[in-house]
Amino acid sequence: MSAAEPSLDALIDALRRLPGVGVKSAQRMAFHLLQHDRDGAQKLATALSGAVQRVHHCRRCHTFSESEVCAVCADAGRDASKLCVIETPADQAALERTGSYRGLYFVLMGRLSPLDGIGVRDIGVAELLERAADPAVQEVILALGFSAEGEATAHALGLALRARGARVTRLARGVPVGSELEYVDLSTIAHAMSDRR
Amino acid sequence: MSAAEPSLDALIDALRRLPGVGVKSAQRMAFHLLQHDRDGAQKLATALSGAVQRVHHCRRCHTFSESEVCAVCADAGRDASKLCVIETPADQAALERTGSYRGLYFVLMGRLSPLDGIGVRDIGVAELLERAADPAVQEVILALGFSAEGEATAHALGLALRARGARVTRLARGVPVGSELEYVDLSTIAHAMSDRR
Repeated sequence: MSAAEPSLDALIDALRRLPGVGVKSAQRMAFHLLQHDRDGAQKLATALSGAVQRVHHCRRCHTFSESEVCAVCADAGRDASKLCVIETPADQAALERTGSYRGLYFVLMGRLSPLDGIGVRDIGVAELLERAADPAVQEVILALGFSAEGEATAHALGLALRARGARVTRLARGVPVGSELEYVDLSTIAHAMSDRR
Repeated sequence: MSAAEPSLDALIDALRRLPGVGVKSAQRMAFHLLQHDRDGAQKLATALSGAVQRVHHCRRCHTFSESEVCAVCADAGRDASKLCVIETPADQAALERTGSYRGLYFVLMGRLSPLDGIGVRDIGVAELLERAADPAVQEVILALGFSAEGEATAHALGLALRARGARVTRLARGVPVGSELEYVDLSTIAHAMSDRR
């Protein structure tokens, strides 16, 4: 806007640090909040401070948690023989919603991405190997995405885990539920054919 | 995410109040801030509180301002005989960057939009009429967008201002600088032809 309004400029600059928000979007957001939703702006400020202060990582699975050990890890009813490795807390939420998995998790909080400078240390591979060495863990399920980076991460983790004697499985690749075969991409069909049961 | 992390859920809910941000984007933003940019999150919280506290509206032109009268309205070097009516502070910034206008402004902070429930009162038409009644004002320039809502707003304001004896002009419609005629839409070419000079 103008150099005469430092608070407004500071707000626009701060909003630009959000992923996917450029200068036009940041202006539109600042304008919207100040013109139509000052209560929302105040709530967002409080929520940001609160989350930065209180949200840390679960000591066992690395997901976001307000307590030292997250609710899932602390749940004695979960099957401790299975450890599912996922990329993000959002993936964990999706798996939980399916109701098909009752084991524990390890959240990488990312995936290997050499181009973005994300290496083995950033996704906590050492912590995962240590966690998987727990004698209670019978099976490590790699539930990473089937993108190029997800595949590369799964490959590297699989090698390291198997070298330490762990039993490693991956999510099945196949035709999505509810889809017509003619619209599914060929590589998916080929995988579904070779993994038929 | 999960019901066990209220601070995280509160942050995602608060981010969803930003325009154009749905639940997936809000999750991605919260995840990014907590995982990669806690400093940015804290800065955004401070900027939000600061802007809500300090940014108000200029008493004369209604734009965002930290002082009672904004820098442009307070500038004795501006031409007080011209009053340019615009929709948003962003439009004002664009006009200022052109360097082609040295008069004063009146910012509607919106435009008439009956479908969204934005009426004559929300865009401060009464204040505009009062402002335009200042004997120093010789010309009111309606610099609204040429969208359907911008046109409707300009029409309504033009009628009200002319009824009170003001001299009202509008921005010229025509072919944008640097464009090839064959790629310009027909309605723009028709306007450019009828307004030829």
